[in-house]
Amino acid sequence: MEDATRSPSRRAFLRGSAVALAGSVTARGATAQTADPLITELQPWASLTGDGVDATPYGLPIKYEADVIRRNVPWLTADTISSINFTPIHALDGTITPQGCAFERHHSGAIELRKDDYRLMINGLVDQELVFTYADLERFPRENHVYFCECAANTGMEWAGAQLNGAQFTHGMIHNMEYTGVPLRLLLEEAGLTAAGDMADKWVYVEGADASSNGRSIPIEKALDDVLVAFKANGEALRKEHGYPVRLVVPGWEGNMWVKWLRRIEIMDGPVESREETSKYTDVLADGTARKFTWVMDAKSVITAPSPQSPIIHGHGPLVITGLAWSGHGQITRVDVSTDGGVTWQTARLGKQGDSKALTRFYLDTQWTGEEMLLQSRAMDETGYVQPTKHALRAIRGENSVYHNNCIQTWHVNAKGEAENVEVS
Amino acid sequence: MEDATRSPSRRAFLRGSAVALAGSVTARGATAQTADPLITELQPWASLTGDGVDATPYGLPIKYEADVIRRNVPWLTADTISSINFTPIHALDGTITPQGCAFERHHSGAIELRKDDYRLMINGLVDQELVFTYADLERFPRENHVYFCECAANTGMEWAGAQLNGAQFTHGMIHNMEYTGVPLRLLLEEAGLTAAGDMADKWVYVEGADASSNGRSIPIEKALDDVLVAFKANGEALRKEHGYPVRLVVPGWEGNMWVKWLRRIEIMDGPVESREETSKYTDVLADGTARKFTWVMDAKSVITAPSPQSPIIHGHGPLVITGLAWSGHGQITRVDVSTDGGVTWQTARLGKQGDSKALTRFYLDTQWTGEEMLLQSRAMDETGYVQPTKHALRAIRGENSVYHNNCIQTWHVNAKGEAENVEVS
Repeated sequence: MEDATRSPSRRAFLRGSAVALAGSVTARGATAQTADPLITELQPWASLTGDGVDATPYGLPIKYEADVIRRNVPWLTADTISSINFTPIHALDGTITPQGCAFERHHSGAIELRKDDYRLMINGLVDQELVFTYADLERFPRENHVYFCECAANTGMEWAGAQLNGAQFTHGMIHNMEYTGVPLRLLLEEAGLTAAGDMADKWVYVEGADASSNGRSIPIEKALDDVLVAFKANGEALRKEHGYPVRLVVPGWEGNMWVKWLRRIEIMDGPVESREETSKYTDVLADGTARKFTWVMDAKSVITAPSPQSPIIHGHGPLVITGLAWSGHGQITRVDVSTDGGVTWQTARLGKQGDSKALTRFYLDTQWTGEEMLLQSRAMDETGYVQPTKHALRAIRGENSVYHNNCIQTWHVNAKGEAENVEVS
Repeated sequence: MEDATRSPSRRAFLRGSAVALAGSVTARGATAQTADPLITELQPWASLTGDGVDATPYGLPIKYEADVIRRNVPWLTADTISSINFTPIHALDGTITPQGCAFERHHSGAIELRKDDYRLMINGLVDQELVFTYADLERFPRENHVYFCECAANTGMEWAGAQLNGAQFTHGMIHNMEYTGVPLRLLLEEAGLTAAGDMADKWVYVEGADASSNGRSIPIEKALDDVLVAFKANGEALRKEHGYPVRLVVPGWEGNMWVKWLRRIEIMDGPVESREETSKYTDVLADGTARKFTWVMDAKSVITAPSPQSPIIHGHGPLVITGLAWSGHGQITRVDVSTDGGVTWQTARLGKQGDSKALTRFYLDTQWTGEEMLLQSRAMDETGYVQPTKHALRAIRGENSVYHNNCIQTWHVNAKGEAENVEVS
């Protein structure tokens, strides 16, 4: 039965393959006798069969990519339960971050919460306080959007000077996924907002089901704009470490507000001024005052290759310099790359037109003849904002800051193609 | 040290958390004594700490999602080495397919091929035959594009009538990823095409490094248009089962042409007429002649929920009907949904404007009062083409076909919300 198309019965459509396969199974069993020994030895993959389709019902990366993983920095915190790990951005390309290596930040660990046990309460200044089950949420209209999520502390170690030697560690507290969720606006409208009166000064307080609760206050304007109550990322259920079964997505705003294991949303007259929005996640200026409510992540970029973990491994000639750019204010419109520490700039090519509040990939297709380089990138967004130098940022913010460091990053590349994290004056 | 922002030294930026954490570790150790027993019992996740950030350096889905996996149909083929498994599209949302559950189709199994051992030859009618290493490929300009990859046999079992009870099995030979790769055009130009003379009748023959080699012929116009030599999918290295380290991406064209473990590209005067483009992957018409070179996957859609594996589990009232649409000819411009077997239609909402030759998610936000439904969806693409009924497709193609079935699919939903695969006359 060579032609599988002849007999479209229940089992027919791949039976043709099955017949052919019987031959190949025989050949496989006899490989040691019949295959050219040289080919078998030099290119075993070309004469021996590989894994069947039942090998990995849910697949993992091939073993040769075992180093492309999230990594933490053990000395950063006393315990990994309240810590972070970092996306291996030096080894990725394109814009989507696979869930398996998308950074985590927990305040009391990643909890396991079944969909059946999940509840979301909306209370406070609403016409009708409501509790939603997971199945309830699935009955509301939902949307798909790609957004970046960046921890406010991303690149925080760099304030005091070049600290961590690798893009994964300096800029890896970021991921970029396609979310599916219900606009928070629809859930708030379900509860009714007429009781709240004038919306202008109202806030929502959001908290998670984990022990930390990680409560944060969000102005109602943002809550009614583009915030999602999300249950899928990159098509599938959220991973445990990203808030399964439901997390908040607050596009363009600092990752700490993207509350995981979301359990309660309260409409209030003002911000709660919780720990997470006062002693943490604010920036102390040179005069001792703190910038408060610095939610939006300003335009930023980083070169991911070449970089300390991703050196140039080929000879002189064509070189692709690549990296990521993003802005919490909207689309990235342009990225420039410098190879001389910011003296001269070339405009990079964007991998594709970036989504608003999502990672944009850039490339500079250039030549390298072995000269030392001071690699930098600077992003521009649709508001006209230009990513600042570290010097310019320090001039405004002083040197007390940790969070919200969006300054230009520098890698020094030596004649061997090795890169390291440096600071230029 | 309550204020982590005060002292931006090397370890300072999360030490504030670390101090707070010390308290929480103590509390954790004492949970059994200090926590409210009722809370600990009813909502353990709210009083006990969860997994640390070192728990899963490369993460997998939470255990509660263990049924969202690729599945094969054992009786389809004699061996899983030359077989298929199916993407669990009934359980996904949005448009991106995670690699871990993206369908596989192998002709001689998924092979393991190291980057260091990888070579790509371009030979035939070129000015200079070339062999590229993996590192060579990384030196060419690259692009990012989201594309669907659909096996030509997807939905093939449905020609003869309703066969397999679930969207995963009827339509799951498809996935949708963001690819990063080098335009094939650039590699062909590197080899030089002046020796080939008039391009109008030239072809490229492409083959893989696996034992099957899976050779296919592609017209040079397509090869010079949007074909990619890809090495990343959804940001990370291709998975072994998807062709690590390099596969061909042939946007909008049948999946069999997306040669995995790509090893050779030969410029030729005509098509090879290989097994995979003659006895397989062609459609025998009623008069016994075969449609040849039916590469482009026509516009198609399917409702993923409700569907046989994804019944309605809530009561009457709001219901979200959702599914996927795609076209090898470009963008999806509209999707209609019928609840009465195609008698009347409503235009669905698109989750976001779809990319060209990529999956588009659609939603119909409706009400359900328990009535039986015959659910259908029909896609339209930018060429004006409308997805046909099974009856219309059979009228043109006869009943011998297996491949290239893009007809409208029907699910019958009963009063309990259960769905099954049916055929409407």
